[in-house]
Amino acid sequence: MIYLGKIFTVGVIGAGRIGKIHIKNLLRKIRDVNLKIIADIEIKDELRQWAVEIGAPKLTSDAYEIINDPEIDIVVICSSTDTHTKFIQDAAKANKNVFCEKPIDTDIKRIKETLSVVKEMGIKLMIGFNRRFDRNFMRCHESVASGQIGEPQIVKITSRDPVPPPIAYIKVSGGIFLDMTIHDWDMARFQTGSEVEEIYATGAVLIDPEIGKAGDIDTAVVILKFKSGAIGIIDNTRQAVYGYDQRVEVFGSKGCVVADNEVTNTVRIYTAEYTNIDKIPYFFMERYMESYSNELKYFFECLRKNIEPKPNGEDGLQNVLIALAAQKSYEENRPIKISEVEKF
Amino acid sequence: MIYLGKIFTVGVIGAGRIGKIHIKNLLRKIRDVNLKIIADIEIKDELRQWAVEIGAPKLTSDAYEIINDPEIDIVVICSSTDTHTKFIQDAAKANKNVFCEKPIDTDIKRIKETLSVVKEMGIKLMIGFNRRFDRNFMRCHESVASGQIGEPQIVKITSRDPVPPPIAYIKVSGGIFLDMTIHDWDMARFQTGSEVEEIYATGAVLIDPEIGKAGDIDTAVVILKFKSGAIGIIDNTRQAVYGYDQRVEVFGSKGCVVADNEVTNTVRIYTAEYTNIDKIPYFFMERYMESYSNELKYFFECLRKNIEPKPNGEDGLQNVLIALAAQKSYEENRPIKISEVEKF
Amino acid sequence: MIYLGKIFTVGVIGAGRIGKIHIKNLLRKIRDVNLKIIADIEIKDELRQWAVEIGAPKLTSDAYEIINDPEIDIVVICSSTDTHTKFIQDAAKANKNVFCEKPIDTDIKRIKETLSVVKEMGIKLMIGFNRRFDRNFMRCHESVASGQIGEPQIVKITSRDPVPPPIAYIKVSGGIFLDMTIHDWDMARFQTGSEVEEIYATGAVLIDPEIGKAGDIDTAVVILKFKSGAIGIIDNTRQAVYGYDQRVEVFGSKGCVVADNEVTNTVRIYTAEYTNIDKIPYFFMERYMESYSNELKYFFECLRKNIEPKPNGEDGLQNVLIALAAQKSYEENRPIKISEVEKF
Amino acid sequence: MIYLGKIFTVGVIGAGRIGKIHIKNLLRKIRDVNLKIIADIEIKDELRQWAVEIGAPKLTSDAYEIINDPEIDIVVICSSTDTHTKFIQDAAKANKNVFCEKPIDTDIKRIKETLSVVKEMGIKLMIGFNRRFDRNFMRCHESVASGQIGEPQIVKITSRDPVPPPIAYIKVSGGIFLDMTIHDWDMARFQTGSEVEEIYATGAVLIDPEIGKAGDIDTAVVILKFKSGAIGIIDNTRQAVYGYDQRVEVFGSKGCVVADNEVTNTVRIYTAEYTNIDKIPYFFMERYMESYSNELKYFFECLRKNIEPKPNGEDGLQNVLIALAAQKSYEENRPIKISEVEKF
Repeated sequence: MIYLGKIFTVGVIGAGRIGKIHIKNLLRKIRDVNLKIIADIEIKDELRQWAVEIGAPKLTSDAYEIINDPEIDIVVICSSTDTHTKFIQDAAKANKNVFCEKPIDTDIKRIKETLSVVKEMGIKLMIGFNRRFDRNFMRCHESVASGQIGEPQIVKITSRDPVPPPIAYIKVSGGIFLDMTIHDWDMARFQTGSEVEEIYATGAVLIDPEIGKAGDIDTAVVILKFKSGAIGIIDNTRQAVYGYDQRVEVFGSKGCVVADNEVTNTVRIYTAEYTNIDKIPYFFMERYMESYSNELKYFFECLRKNIEPKPNGEDGLQNVLIALAAQKSYEENRPIKISEVEKF
Repeated sequence: MIYLGKIFTVGVIGAGRIGKIHIKNLLRKIRDVNLKIIADIEIKDELRQWAVEIGAPKLTSDAYEIINDPEIDIVVICSSTDTHTKFIQDAAKANKNVFCEKPIDTDIKRIKETLSVVKEMGIKLMIGFNRRFDRNFMRCHESVASGQIGEPQIVKITSRDPVPPPIAYIKVSGGIFLDMTIHDWDMARFQTGSEVEEIYATGAVLIDPEIGKAGDIDTAVVILKFKSGAIGIIDNTRQAVYGYDQRVEVFGSKGCVVADNEVTNTVRIYTAEYTNIDKIPYFFMERYMESYSNELKYFFECLRKNIEPKPNGEDGLQNVLIALAAQKSYEENRPIKISEVEKF
Repeated sequence: MIYLGKIFTVGVIGAGRIGKIHIKNLLRKIRDVNLKIIADIEIKDELRQWAVEIGAPKLTSDAYEIINDPEIDIVVICSSTDTHTKFIQDAAKANKNVFCEKPIDTDIKRIKETLSVVKEMGIKLMIGFNRRFDRNFMRCHESVASGQIGEPQIVKITSRDPVPPPIAYIKVSGGIFLDMTIHDWDMARFQTGSEVEEIYATGAVLIDPEIGKAGDIDTAVVILKFKSGAIGIIDNTRQAVYGYDQRVEVFGSKGCVVADNEVTNTVRIYTAEYTNIDKIPYFFMERYMESYSNELKYFFECLRKNIEPKPNGEDGLQNVLIALAAQKSYEENRPIKISEVEKF
Repeated sequence: MIYLGKIFTVGVIGAGRIGKIHIKNLLRKIRDVNLKIIADIEIKDELRQWAVEIGAPKLTSDAYEIINDPEIDIVVICSSTDTHTKFIQDAAKANKNVFCEKPIDTDIKRIKETLSVVKEMGIKLMIGFNRRFDRNFMRCHESVASGQIGEPQIVKITSRDPVPPPIAYIKVSGGIFLDMTIHDWDMARFQTGSEVEEIYATGAVLIDPEIGKAGDIDTAVVILKFKSGAIGIIDNTRQAVYGYDQRVEVFGSKGCVVADNEVTNTVRIYTAEYTNIDKIPYFFMERYMESYSNELKYFFECLRKNIEPKPNGEDGLQNVLIALAAQKSYEENRPIKISEVEKF
């Protein structure tokens, strides 16, 4: 069924940092959408005030007001990761389409169960790997997908945060490979159009010893081998003092496409002492803001045209599988096949 | 009086291309603003429908519903140029602050009269030279104003449209110097922080002979001499086939600051045959969109803090004076002092 | 007659800064050339020692040892400007081909006489406007000449020295338009492929009042009108504190070609405080070194293939005519037609 | 002993492609050097003719005419790899300083023996890792070494040839890790200032199946772990159709330094259809030409000032050790410690 022109009614579960971005976009940038209910685990004054300012609708602390509302067509899930599969399954069973933030879950079994329910119910599920909707990485993908640079042979991703998250967050993050690199697994797969077969991951604690004490690393370098034969390289660090460094390069048999960092402005200053440009955008709020509205627009369009959205649940699953393989590879210091972690 | 935190009530006169941009920004991007009435000379179905979609308020074909509304604090004037001075004066007399699109008028006497009324009534008037609020040109200005490049000696402005307007528009535009270069007069004054003393303008019909038949030129090159001693260079063309070319450079005693074009994306594609980047943004809607919301935000902040906004009426006047001098210089093929056109 | 494979015997008159560059190139970079004699007005110890180190041949203080040597095929003239026309004429009469540094002379009558002798004797004369042989400006020219950007409409030249010459030099230089801008007259003509019809030149003393006292200006901005209809813009300054700023841009009906500054290296440094690149090359010795050997190689190839070299005597003449018109325009503050200065 | 001002007498063994570059530089770009003898295994007519054209001295087919010549101070070894250690040892025993092309040898035992002789004789040995003398990578190193970017944490090297060598060459090359990546081992060590402890190398045959049949791979991706804790990433391919892609990036605790590719020129061409720049330099002859004269100049300066040159024999050894470990890692698909291959 095709819903061209349909005005969708939407509920958002989770109004944290990311939830608020989606809510703003739903209110201001997405056409033909009616945001009806926002659920958050606890409706604090700060949220209530923010909702008034922004012109947001009804607030509730019960996500099931959304899931059980027969008027609601679409559920946008931005709550904590451990609640994702439950909400996806229940929304699916209530026959609602779902947009869910990444990662789906950290448990392969639960993910697979959830994808079964999604399939059975025939709803659409999109996972919020927003970087696919960044203008630069989209253009990169478009060039590769069109065959302009031939068969992809090497994909290189530079993905560096400006500042580490709090240690408390690190402890519950699932580790750098699930928390941070997960965007890069998705990007590598998106750009090459191929699945990962084997991975070798290494890393170190070079930024902050507290991160090491919390059982994680802060610097990671990974080699991916794709089924297509292509080889991927990812480097991550929790602290690039010069800003949020986000670059992608795809080398192929007929050429190479390079997506460089965005700039804060195009100004160059020349003096007797130095030639300067301003620092690159500080963090994801500056760099990827547009990608968040792009991904929602795309999701709504998929629903209207009855097209399977990408990245979907299967992408969500693959990205978690790679993360688990990376973790194992790092721990055992040897290459790991994805098939080793695939069977739960 | 300082209106920190005040929620302003606003009316917009004129809902054409630029009016719609301001209306959208007032509805979506400006905080603490209540857009109450939109006036347009004729309320067509297309406008009515657009207003519904965008969530716009009451429409009227009578601008004086806005000007006479005691609740309205601010009038945003986007109607045709010949109506500007009348609306500014009447709004000022009704004690409303005014944001008016450029140019104020093409007649020096009417402009001066209007500025008198504005002064007498003590209201604030800002003129919509939006390019001052482009992130790149702001950064440029900031560098110059901070003294980083010393005393400005040469300012160079490249300002090229991608495609000429219709001949019908050319005929009523007031000529390239009033219609197109007016942005550059303002930019040159903004960057150098000095007033123009003398101008030499030349030009030609190189794009379309029809433009010549309409009594205008399509290519213009101008030299400005500033009171500070600095020299300005502007080049304009109605048709840069590669896109909207908008660059500014300020050379000073201690350095040089260059604001380059924005890019459509940061991707570079290398093949055996070519190295390509995508075309620059096509036109002002892509390039300057953000500057329109920036300028309104700034205007509202000036009102709240009781600061004289810039560019104000005096800027509007100076820019028209330069345009008239440029026209005269072009016609007589000799340098013209601004003082020659100043006395009406 | 075509001299393919011929080994030319060469004499160089003048072993100052530029003469030494040509001598080095003749000894090390040009194939099939025998540098036989170097003449300088006075053979100082420093020169003698330099000649030994470099492996240079016989030194003489008598230029006529070169001009009268029947073995010598080519005379390279790098002596002071006032000696150029005499040496060119005498070398031509002795049936030698001549490469002469710019400008030919500052006197139109003497230049025309000299060109007559050159024509009569049927020798080849090339003038050393080396910037035509810079890899970037050659590429620019090639793009324009191939029609890639259509009909040239605007040409913009930025030409800024890093540091003014000594005041003593300024006094005998003939003024900025003959001494410095002369390269830009040639570049503008080279890029557009058209002759200049009218010029408006302005300028100021913004760098050093001593330059003003010496009767010259240190900042110049010029508009050129070409016979083709194109318009040129040149800006010069004697002091760009950030380095030797040399850029060219040609805007045409089908596109635009921009030749940016060379870089000292391709390194970019990002820190928490700044993003830096190194300063641009300091001066012409760094920037144009290669162009000097390129121009000589080209001249020798023209001789071997019996092709008229460009820039030739006529180019030398035109560039001086424009300089004189610029000076007049500056002094009288009005546009000057080249035809006004053409008749001596 | 310090030889400031000394004129060195030099012999070159091997006049192939690289030998000719060094010979040209010794004749034209290096001061105070007397190139006395050139030895090649067979003096062909082509070489004889080239030597005459270039002004080269005596040719011989017996390298020992150089090694045994008491006048000769320095031997430059450019012969085939299998002859390096023998010539180094014999030249050292004859008390001559040696510049030897990379790699020293492929056999660790022979290299260590040779370094013993070098040490015993107290001569200076430099190995020709010319890329250290590229202006961009030098600048990069200088920034890192100065502490500007803090402690190096990640070093990334992109090193891609434009076209594979002939299969016949591949067969005797020692494999991609010894033949091609060896430059990158050296670069990684040069930039980080640390030795490699462990390596994981992977690769594939993606360009030409014939390379696979010859027992080699054509695409390689490597992770290095340094003793300092830094992590290195290298990617190589034998065929980047867009040109010779040579980039280096060092990420550190206080910043990041990126050395981009050189450009063929600085021209950018904008049209309605595309924005183009010219292809990057084609191969090492264009890209690294200057580095060859820089390295020899540096070597001669080291000799004059009695400074130990870098990269020296120990660098040559380390680079071969890494290559062997890389090969083993690739074959066994596991990380290999350098210590595993160190004991011969």
